[in-house]
Amino acid sequence: MSKEQLLKQFKELKSRNLSLDMSRGKPSKAQLDLSMDMMDVLNSHSSLSDTYGVDSRNYGGLTGLEECKELLAELSEVNKEDIIIFGNSSLNVMYECISDAFLYGICGSTPWSKLEKIKWLCPVPGYDRHFAICEHLGIEMINIPLNEDGPDMDMIEEYIKDPCVKGIWCVPKYSNPTGTTYSNEVVERFAKLKPEAKDFRIYWDNAYSVHHLYEDKQDHIPEILSLAKKYNNEDIVYKFISTSKISFPGSGIAALAASSNNLKDIKKHLEIKTIGYDKVNQLRHVRYFKDLDGIKSQMKKHADILRPKFEYILSSLEEVKDLCSFTKPHGGYFISLYVPNKAKEVISRCKEAGLKLTDAGCAYPYHNDPSNSHIRLAPSYMEMDELKEAMKILLLAIKIESC
Amino acid sequence: MSKEQLLKQFKELKSRNLSLDMSRGKPSKAQLDLSMDMMDVLNSHSSLSDTYGVDSRNYGGLTGLEECKELLAELSEVNKEDIIIFGNSSLNVMYECISDAFLYGICGSTPWSKLEKIKWLCPVPGYDRHFAICEHLGIEMINIPLNEDGPDMDMIEEYIKDPCVKGIWCVPKYSNPTGTTYSNEVVERFAKLKPEAKDFRIYWDNAYSVHHLYEDKQDHIPEILSLAKKYNNEDIVYKFISTSKISFPGSGIAALAASSNNLKDIKKHLEIKTIGYDKVNQLRHVRYFKDLDGIKSQMKKHADILRPKFEYILSSLEEVKDLCSFTKPHGGYFISLYVPNKAKEVISRCKEAGLKLTDAGCAYPYHNDPSNSHIRLAPSYMEMDELKEAMKILLLAIKIESC
Repeated sequence: MSKEQLLKQFKELKSRNLSLDMSRGKPSKAQLDLSMDMMDVLNSHSSLSDTYGVDSRNYGGLTGLEECKELLAELSEVNKEDIIIFGNSSLNVMYECISDAFLYGICGSTPWSKLEKIKWLCPVPGYDRHFAICEHLGIEMINIPLNEDGPDMDMIEEYIKDPCVKGIWCVPKYSNPTGTTYSNEVVERFAKLKPEAKDFRIYWDNAYSVHHLYEDKQDHIPEILSLAKKYNNEDIVYKFISTSKISFPGSGIAALAASSNNLKDIKKHLEIKTIGYDKVNQLRHVRYFKDLDGIKSQMKKHADILRPKFEYILSSLEEVKDLCSFTKPHGGYFISLYVPNKAKEVISRCKEAGLKLTDAGCAYPYHNDPSNSHIRLAPSYMEMDELKEAMKILLLAIKIESC
Repeated sequence: MSKEQLLKQFKELKSRNLSLDMSRGKPSKAQLDLSMDMMDVLNSHSSLSDTYGVDSRNYGGLTGLEECKELLAELSEVNKEDIIIFGNSSLNVMYECISDAFLYGICGSTPWSKLEKIKWLCPVPGYDRHFAICEHLGIEMINIPLNEDGPDMDMIEEYIKDPCVKGIWCVPKYSNPTGTTYSNEVVERFAKLKPEAKDFRIYWDNAYSVHHLYEDKQDHIPEILSLAKKYNNEDIVYKFISTSKISFPGSGIAALAASSNNLKDIKKHLEIKTIGYDKVNQLRHVRYFKDLDGIKSQMKKHADILRPKFEYILSSLEEVKDLCSFTKPHGGYFISLYVPNKAKEVISRCKEAGLKLTDAGCAYPYHNDPSNSHIRLAPSYMEMDELKEAMKILLLAIKIESC
């Protein structure tokens, strides 16, 4: 089809004044509805004490209800002694770990606010909100290519010789936004990492640990904390998890699993910051999910809603496969689409026709995609009929910009 | 009665191996039960969208549901534009304001982590957890006597000439632990305060704003934000509030009211820290309380439970009124007891007989009560029969230590 014909089609689409949003990894209404029974597990006749006799309604319980630790430890594949339960946002827990490091240092090291420069390794493409934390705190970010088996470990092993390099963002499973799952070898190399900076930590954001799309194609990663322990290196990693995309995104439970040294260090600050997090909501999650099987059965239902959306996008993209490339994740919330040197143009054209995508460069530090190729697609929030309209716009935009 | 006789009585009491805790201002089980119907207002058949159409279950809504802002703005006596809704802990919001100041500065000022010294004014006796935040961050605390009408304003107006003085803790109504309510004149002088440091803020912790003990003896304070506005001084104050002792202590809603400059400044950091707080719990509070009248009627029920406990303690203390002095609050959660030069000894003797009181000095910076006189009594948590035992121990300890 000629560019002229494509532009004519585009004009028609534009005239429909659509308003479509594919920019954020938000669960859809149908997914939210899956957890509505959670609103019934606690009522005015329930005991709001846990099995250990702790009244969830009152003050106290800084590190969380034991029962909730058991549930999230099972989800995190760690012991319940290795976990602290926080509020509703794992992103906030990550922020707190970094702001603690600036204010107090980590396990006795110099507070980062007293240091000239802090650097951070950022596998790219990655999660925009991770990078935003670094940028806000003036941390210098270094791009690390994310390969099909995980971040470029040779490069990482080289960079960590610099004592200014204090951390790395990792989404090891169904990574945001590529859907990449790290290989066993990559995880093993992370567990063995011996950085020059003693206060270097791997920020292991296991946000999509049980967020499979398929029953028969599930990715697996080794449990990093126990692996690091095997190498006497367990202080190297903070492991984050949350139920945000399991129950309700805004009203879930976040947790941090780490070594006893790290947890002790974090708790020392935590007891100054708050008397405790929302234990009633912790209890609500425990009563609703009961155990990991409860979570897994919920995730199957999420997958049944998400899978057709992913598959529709992927099959639609086949039409333009000569003009772009794209990832085919087995789980998570995103697809990475690469339109060589045309990402900004495609995104901007989509916007013109009423389809909002995440800004170009969003998946890169400083919003700078050096190749101007990457587009993050978030299939979850839209209903199927909207998704079909959105893909029409996207395909057309790719074709036009590739002419 | 001779000391010998008193000691004999004490021995008897001790032999009963009691275990009583009067150390923390925790609501009792009966008070927690008051809010149990809140567990029914949202169920699996409820719409979890607010009246503005926002689905409380999903991501987003950084500053809170509009309906929840309306409720807490009414409670705070401010406009809903002047408020941000946070998580379950107002203490945590205070901590965040201070840690933001260290990391980023306030409204464009130099980050405190770059300054040599930060000083803080601390009306005493005061709230131990306030002082703990300062101590943890290495802030130098300065004692300000808390008089019957509020903190010594002459002294404050003198100290704020020092640019290192960056803040003051205030619990303006039914203060923790004395129960003091600031006079209109004191609040007015706070509203007019012109400190040398442009990043000085009054931390106005209105924790007990509706926590009256009596229908006919209620204290009132002027609304400081509007008062400060009148003097073109509205950036001077952060006003904190929470529902912790209204609904459930661990699962309430906290909020910050402040000028638009301050809110803009705080929001700039907040959007990096989290995607949003628990909006389902916000909605739950809105549906349950509906409006300020709903809150007030709940507070009457709290008062009915708390009042007899306060009155029992106060009438018991009459027996030793020649050996000590004590406050007689109209609200709040505490009574301040002064046993001249004997606080440590009385507290330690009580502990020996199985009554836990807050540590001596707890209400003073660095746990140092210069006069060794102050004891914080927390009537709320104990049941009446326990309270009676506790007071036997306390009275006896006062008598013995005063011999």
